[in-house]
Amino acid sequence: MTAAPPVQPDAGLLSPVRVGTAVEAAVGDGAWLQALLDAEAALARAQARTGTVPAAAAAAITAAARAEHFDVREVALAARSTANPVVGLVAALTRVVARTAPEAAEYVHRGSTSQDVFDTGAMLVAARALRLIVADLRATAVSLAALAGAHRDTVMAGRTLALHAVPTTFGLKAAGWRHLVLEAVARLERVAQESLVISLGGAAGTLAGYLQYAEQASGQDAERDLGQVLGQETEQTPQQDAEQAPGQKAAQVPQQDAEQAPGGGAGCGVGDVVELLAEAFAGETGLARPVLPWHALRTPVTDLGAALAHTAGALGKMAADVQVLARTEIGEVAEPAPEGRGASSAMPHKRNPVLATLIRSAAVQVPALASVLAQCLPTEDERSAGLWHAEWQPLRECLRLTGGAAHAAAELAAGLVVRPERMRANLDLTAGQVVSERLAAYLAPRLGRSAAKELLSRASQQAQAAGQPLGQVLAQLPDLAGVVSGEELALLLDPRRYTGAAGALVDRALRE
Amino acid sequence: MTAAPPVQPDAGLLSPVRVGTAVEAAVGDGAWLQALLDAEAALARAQARTGTVPAAAAAAITAAARAEHFDVREVALAARSTANPVVGLVAALTRVVARTAPEAAEYVHRGSTSQDVFDTGAMLVAARALRLIVADLRATAVSLAALAGAHRDTVMAGRTLALHAVPTTFGLKAAGWRHLVLEAVARLERVAQESLVISLGGAAGTLAGYLQYAEQASGQDAERDLGQVLGQETEQTPQQDAEQAPGQKAAQVPQQDAEQAPGGGAGCGVGDVVELLAEAFAGETGLARPVLPWHALRTPVTDLGAALAHTAGALGKMAADVQVLARTEIGEVAEPAPEGRGASSAMPHKRNPVLATLIRSAAVQVPALASVLAQCLPTEDERSAGLWHAEWQPLRECLRLTGGAAHAAAELAAGLVVRPERMRANLDLTAGQVVSERLAAYLAPRLGRSAAKELLSRASQQAQAAGQPLGQVLAQLPDLAGVVSGEELALLLDPRRYTGAAGALVDRALRE
Amino acid sequence: MTAAPPVQPDAGLLSPVRVGTAVEAAVGDGAWLQALLDAEAALARAQARTGTVPAAAAAAITAAARAEHFDVREVALAARSTANPVVGLVAALTRVVARTAPEAAEYVHRGSTSQDVFDTGAMLVAARALRLIVADLRATAVSLAALAGAHRDTVMAGRTLALHAVPTTFGLKAAGWRHLVLEAVARLERVAQESLVISLGGAAGTLAGYLQYAEQASGQDAERDLGQVLGQETEQTPQQDAEQAPGQKAAQVPQQDAEQAPGGGAGCGVGDVVELLAEAFAGETGLARPVLPWHALRTPVTDLGAALAHTAGALGKMAADVQVLARTEIGEVAEPAPEGRGASSAMPHKRNPVLATLIRSAAVQVPALASVLAQCLPTEDERSAGLWHAEWQPLRECLRLTGGAAHAAAELAAGLVVRPERMRANLDLTAGQVVSERLAAYLAPRLGRSAAKELLSRASQQAQAAGQPLGQVLAQLPDLAGVVSGEELALLLDPRRYTGAAGALVDRALRE
Amino acid sequence: MTAAPPVQPDAGLLSPVRVGTAVEAAVGDGAWLQALLDAEAALARAQARTGTVPAAAAAAITAAARAEHFDVREVALAARSTANPVVGLVAALTRVVARTAPEAAEYVHRGSTSQDVFDTGAMLVAARALRLIVADLRATAVSLAALAGAHRDTVMAGRTLALHAVPTTFGLKAAGWRHLVLEAVARLERVAQESLVISLGGAAGTLAGYLQYAEQASGQDAERDLGQVLGQETEQTPQQDAEQAPGQKAAQVPQQDAEQAPGGGAGCGVGDVVELLAEAFAGETGLARPVLPWHALRTPVTDLGAALAHTAGALGKMAADVQVLARTEIGEVAEPAPEGRGASSAMPHKRNPVLATLIRSAAVQVPALASVLAQCLPTEDERSAGLWHAEWQPLRECLRLTGGAAHAAAELAAGLVVRPERMRANLDLTAGQVVSERLAAYLAPRLGRSAAKELLSRASQQAQAAGQPLGQVLAQLPDLAGVVSGEELALLLDPRRYTGAAGALVDRALRE
Repeated sequence: MTAAPPVQPDAGLLSPVRVGTAVEAAVGDGAWLQALLDAEAALARAQARTGTVPAAAAAAITAAARAEHFDVREVALAARSTANPVVGLVAALTRVVARTAPEAAEYVHRGSTSQDVFDTGAMLVAARALRLIVADLRATAVSLAALAGAHRDTVMAGRTLALHAVPTTFGLKAAGWRHLVLEAVARLERVAQESLVISLGGAAGTLAGYLQYAEQASGQDAERDLGQVLGQETEQTPQQDAEQAPGQKAAQVPQQDAEQAPGGGAGCGVGDVVELLAEAFAGETGLARPVLPWHALRTPVTDLGAALAHTAGALGKMAADVQVLARTEIGEVAEPAPEGRGASSAMPHKRNPVLATLIRSAAVQVPALASVLAQCLPTEDERSAGLWHAEWQPLRECLRLTGGAAHAAAELAAGLVVRPERMRANLDLTAGQVVSERLAAYLAPRLGRSAAKELLSRASQQAQAAGQPLGQVLAQLPDLAGVVSGEELALLLDPRRYTGAAGALVDRALRE
Repeated sequence: MTAAPPVQPDAGLLSPVRVGTAVEAAVGDGAWLQALLDAEAALARAQARTGTVPAAAAAAITAAARAEHFDVREVALAARSTANPVVGLVAALTRVVARTAPEAAEYVHRGSTSQDVFDTGAMLVAARALRLIVADLRATAVSLAALAGAHRDTVMAGRTLALHAVPTTFGLKAAGWRHLVLEAVARLERVAQESLVISLGGAAGTLAGYLQYAEQASGQDAERDLGQVLGQETEQTPQQDAEQAPGQKAAQVPQQDAEQAPGGGAGCGVGDVVELLAEAFAGETGLARPVLPWHALRTPVTDLGAALAHTAGALGKMAADVQVLARTEIGEVAEPAPEGRGASSAMPHKRNPVLATLIRSAAVQVPALASVLAQCLPTEDERSAGLWHAEWQPLRECLRLTGGAAHAAAELAAGLVVRPERMRANLDLTAGQVVSERLAAYLAPRLGRSAAKELLSRASQQAQAAGQPLGQVLAQLPDLAGVVSGEELALLLDPRRYTGAAGALVDRALRE
Repeated sequence: MTAAPPVQPDAGLLSPVRVGTAVEAAVGDGAWLQALLDAEAALARAQARTGTVPAAAAAAITAAARAEHFDVREVALAARSTANPVVGLVAALTRVVARTAPEAAEYVHRGSTSQDVFDTGAMLVAARALRLIVADLRATAVSLAALAGAHRDTVMAGRTLALHAVPTTFGLKAAGWRHLVLEAVARLERVAQESLVISLGGAAGTLAGYLQYAEQASGQDAERDLGQVLGQETEQTPQQDAEQAPGQKAAQVPQQDAEQAPGGGAGCGVGDVVELLAEAFAGETGLARPVLPWHALRTPVTDLGAALAHTAGALGKMAADVQVLARTEIGEVAEPAPEGRGASSAMPHKRNPVLATLIRSAAVQVPALASVLAQCLPTEDERSAGLWHAEWQPLRECLRLTGGAAHAAAELAAGLVVRPERMRANLDLTAGQVVSERLAAYLAPRLGRSAAKELLSRASQQAQAAGQPLGQVLAQLPDLAGVVSGEELALLLDPRRYTGAAGALVDRALRE
Repeated sequence: MTAAPPVQPDAGLLSPVRVGTAVEAAVGDGAWLQALLDAEAALARAQARTGTVPAAAAAAITAAARAEHFDVREVALAARSTANPVVGLVAALTRVVARTAPEAAEYVHRGSTSQDVFDTGAMLVAARALRLIVADLRATAVSLAALAGAHRDTVMAGRTLALHAVPTTFGLKAAGWRHLVLEAVARLERVAQESLVISLGGAAGTLAGYLQYAEQASGQDAERDLGQVLGQETEQTPQQDAEQAPGQKAAQVPQQDAEQAPGGGAGCGVGDVVELLAEAFAGETGLARPVLPWHALRTPVTDLGAALAHTAGALGKMAADVQVLARTEIGEVAEPAPEGRGASSAMPHKRNPVLATLIRSAAVQVPALASVLAQCLPTEDERSAGLWHAEWQPLRECLRLTGGAAHAAAELAAGLVVRPERMRANLDLTAGQVVSERLAAYLAPRLGRSAAKELLSRASQQAQAAGQPLGQVLAQLPDLAGVVSGEELALLLDPRRYTGAAGALVDRALRE
């Protein structure tokens, strides 16, 4: 075994796609620590609202729960003994609280468990990050709508399998990018509304610890006498009665699963307590309430992963297209180039398409990271020995890589330079072949479909081989004499006249 | 290079999780071929409804489009020359149509492109598979609801990080499994409703080929005279005017992107044609309409992947728990064991938990396969040279692995054997330690929180080391003299009395 | 739950990259079934060599072990009851043997376990597939060597981040592709030699079942009298002695873990029996021997996955380059185009780069599939309940996708059309900017490094904006007056004169 | 777009598996920055050895290249403009050098490119990390050898598909873990020796920039007169001659691809310069030399990923077994429990298996991260616009997650508590069923194989149902009367007598 030298924390050196972005700050260790503390504080306030914790203690805990009071590295290091950072954080928070409000210290993390705090904190982090990501996506969509509108009828080569296929318009391409971005927004917002939930389950998802303290707080325990508790005793379920030996003084300890406290002063059944506490915790955190504690039911995390993988991939589509169109030989678009952007260490002439590069670097990573989150769904038991722990870093990476990509996309969309003249020039490169489909359709009723296709196939090959325009080759074909005039050919071969429904589709998409 | 010997097709030998299931049949090569043919036939009928194809031709194409008329291996082999199976299938379909209705042959695949047919076919396959999967999931949920209800108060050890933590109930566990299954249903149904869409874009997503044929069919072309087309000519956009040299007879060839045909007999602009055709195609297939052609906007496929990965993982959670609980030493559940199920080739006594094994085998594969689908989102151009093609097999595997897992889950949930007596016996194994949390809470106000926890930590270790019940150790501790009586201890240490809100949570979940 | 309709087996419809290739045939269900039968037959012969099975029985089993005697679908279906196909196959093989050699039937699968047969079969399949893959890779490398040699000095634009960077040669590019292919060959051959091993562990990796039958066969059991066995009794280890109660007749049943049979007629210790049997089984199969039974030590499978993922990715590099260079605007290479290859269903002029497309479709899938194999390494117990089963289909997919890609690569490399004139023309597109690095270096000592770089950066921007050659811009710069003459500039700006060590590197690589 | 608030760097909060380990320190941003600087310094020294850079300048650069002179966050932030951290680092390093040795500043990064520095730095980081990982693995193997030896004959239940199968020994299990660890060591050491190479390619892999400066330094340029260069002019290749217009003064600018300088004072061809420089750079860094520059030939990175994924998975196997065996009901092993280790925030009695949990958390993540590295192999062009950038963070995560897991494994193996008495007790749980395989073999020749198996299958079910020992059920079966005596049965049913070759296999494995 090796000794551990001092370590310098990570500052984003290997992840330029997110370095310096707001989302990076929102999901970093500092922000995560704060979110864990926010969860602890919100829990204390929620317990104050339900009577388990004195209001003053909750206030003291809230006051202490500021990341600046803690050494994040120390908290991180402590996690190696317990496999999660909450155990050490609770100890540290308790000490901080004890310094200013000693009587409040014992209320820290009352009845709780590491996973409730960690998962609630993670959802807070995710909620904050999603807001930033969605804002950048919305900005991207606005810019892309402008591009789509401005270039609704800017003709360019449609490309399939790397080759010119038939004409399209840049407006349709931009509208497609925007549509993907809006689909990403819809998925992220759905996750933000439905899947970001509090975690409140206690040690094994039954909330037993919370209830124990709630009961103790609700007067029974004030007497410090189990005998007193008798008054709040609940009705037994028949099964439980049957299982008890006669004479057993079962009634002296409360059944936590009682639905209704029949007589006692507390007047509040287990279900009600849970209801109140969960509502209060949700209210304090701004997160939604899940149907069940989800320590081992990890849909919120896989939902996040899936939506983020979609988002990163959707942005990756725009980046892939920009990379193609920015190629030296194609030159149909260029990235915005503020001072210093895209500089090469060796080549003074280069203005690298940096934003597309960054976006792509994220789009390649996120699907694999999200797959880890899905691999963690089949968690065993009431809490997994490892699959829970494997989620944390991939979830954060999904958030910050996608967020960084969204930030780059917003800048890319806002400043993209479009060159219609290069689009036109490239369209003309094949001198008519790009509309061979149209000619085939036009000639089909005249020559028969397969004869028409074959004729065009041959003529295209001949045109390519000879470096002649397709129209010229066709004009000389005896088969076409009397079928189509040179003038008609010229019109049929004009790529600008074969953009199909591109304009209508742009309009349709922009109504979205 | 190597020669190709005859090959025996795959019959499911390596994938027992799905072999023999309905979903396997619904997504196999035969079913996929039929779905491609269904797409061709639906397209012809849609074009008949919009006047591009004679109704009789559409009927002939529909009649011919039966998988039994085709050799799937031959179609598959042809795909190696063109990278997709549609080119060869169109040729074969044309031949079949030509045999019975020669005049209909030229209407096959009119104005279309491989991707429209393949993607529409894939969505049909997905729609059919999802129905089967959801049915099995619903059946699973019904069985699990029954288990959750029946065992609402069946106490068992809650386990975290592989160890007994605090008590829970089997009802809560089953309710959790069911909740995950219902979440999977919700996600799959959302995909089925929103994401399964027709593909209708033509060669590069502009529908130009469809429009060309539609125009030709709508009378203009009947005259075989471009001059005639003049009447339908549309207004030029200013930009296009500006770009045309004076005197150019631009008007003779219709602009496909015209929104409105101003005067002509067809009376129908490009947008309207697209609208009618798309609605007709959607109607014929039963699929939804996308905002834009999605040749290069692959959200439908990633949505499918994400929902299926969630489903497989959700089922994997149940399987993971069953595997733990079925262990020889634990024995709290057993799989249903019809004749022959679970037999070992070597060990006569074994009844292997086969269903859980099969489910888990799927849950491990699907996330990685779904990640391929997300990797394919950043497709370049109007159609990718490879990323589209990489989707097909992973998508099918996601469908049939998940479907097979759902089928196994339905059987597992329906027949799961639950052994409350083993749950009780296992709970007693630690002789009280499983409620140490409760004791800590109980003693905290009496001894101070950390003193209480430390005392219990020590006592638990002593109990383990000595093999004594925790209660016995505690009863002898001088620190507790006068703090808690033996009788109170006995009650506090009863695991059945510390199930927290388990019952209430089951009730809550079953109302879902 | 749903009923299972008849299913049509898969014929490769969704996987054109491998359809019709030799590797497809070598890993399909038919070939896999045969490999399982080969494993059973080899085991019987090995046991015949070590005396456990009569030679005639082994011969009868070998004769019966032909895939054509079995219905692969039936075997596949049976696997759903037992989670693996071997249990059903053993039953079927036993029936087939019984028909011709009833007395041999009881020797089928003697002392064995499903996993020994399945894993040995899988390794046989892998060995056969690797031979085909390596042959295609070697053919590819030969073609690439020819290309590299022929184009050692064919200058073209080196491209980085999608833009022209500095010149390179096509020979260096082809040499790089070849180098990757040779690296793949080296990795696959290492796996073939070191990692493809027999599986021989028995029910839980101790070979106890094999030994039991071996003992019974070696005379002891002939007497059907345990008392007789005494003679072969082995020395007790001290620990075992200590644990036995006095008077226990331990000696009557042989200890299987005896290292040395001290006195008896068999004269052969456990270690020797294992040694002989393993050597015989390895000999009969042609596979290597592992150090330990590997039911739960899955390195052979992850080794395969890693090498195949590398191979697919290495071929993907060539495909990615071909796709770039084949773009309409670039046109520096074209795929070989035999009749029908690359045809489009819609566009007569297109010759799609089909081979590169197929290769890329594999390169995207294999890494994710290989990651499943690595996910299965942390298998629990002596055999996993699911992780073993999850390996099978991904392993086969890795083999056949990679094999299909290798087959396509061989064809691509053999027929790639290279167009030096287009390379030259593209190089000239930037009219000198592609050697800005050289100018910067040349001017650095004259103007200072950063001044030189800045000057060139400005000049390049000006040249781009004005559409002028860089040389012309530079010639007019007052800063350069007297520093570099127009004639010198012309030479410095000639891309052909700035290919660095490209030629030398080609030579170096071709010596490999 | 969103503004960027200050960010707190990451301190390992979400990755307890590696927090505080030596490998974390060795791969963190600080260490990575140092490695980049080491690469720059080594390059300068190598260029000094080959005469391109003055020795004093190389010394000054080396002295300046200390991470403490740089603000890692600033360097990281600069990378967002250029997509990699080297451009900004070179600028910063040049400034630092200029402060102490102004004349050396211009020699920083001479003729180089970002990727050479980054990739060489990454390899240095990998080399350092691998040494730490291998050391922990070796320590793990030593501990496991001791466990395997000590428990060579400690009988326990072999478990397959979660159930007791046949007996095995703990020694064999530990030997298997060790074997996997040794396989991991072998793979990592092979990578360390063969795959960790310098990167030296220049802007596009031709080393042209290095050569340009080398030529300028070797006297020609001293004259600052291109005419002087004539003397070193090389022979033209015939192709190049043919391509030159007559009268062109081609000879004035040196051809970089000349193999041999025929006459001049430098006396050193391009190949020689490359050879010398590469050897010098390899010598200065301690890394190996690749056959070709690998900017776009990424085998070194995928090799690393593959070996690390194997290692993490291999350790995950041990962790998975420990988690099973540590379960409350099984209790056959326990993790070492120093003070505080494994504490729960809620449950005083728990000692969570923290080390196995940490290892598993890594084993789940690494395969997916390594798959990203394989996804990056099909990089386009001479440097990818995104796939290179996508490697960095996953590569580091692979290193530190695996390293953290190895560190935990060393501790786990060194301190694992083994409980033979629990193993024995668990073996007896099924009262004989665990050796049903043996009985089946024993009875097969007496009753016929299938009759024997069926009899035992029935008897096992009856024993389970009735809770009786199998022996007792068998003793009462009339079928066995006269076939096997009660005494024989007792011996046959003793699990300790059916461990097969376990001991011999341990011995064999320990000889490894």
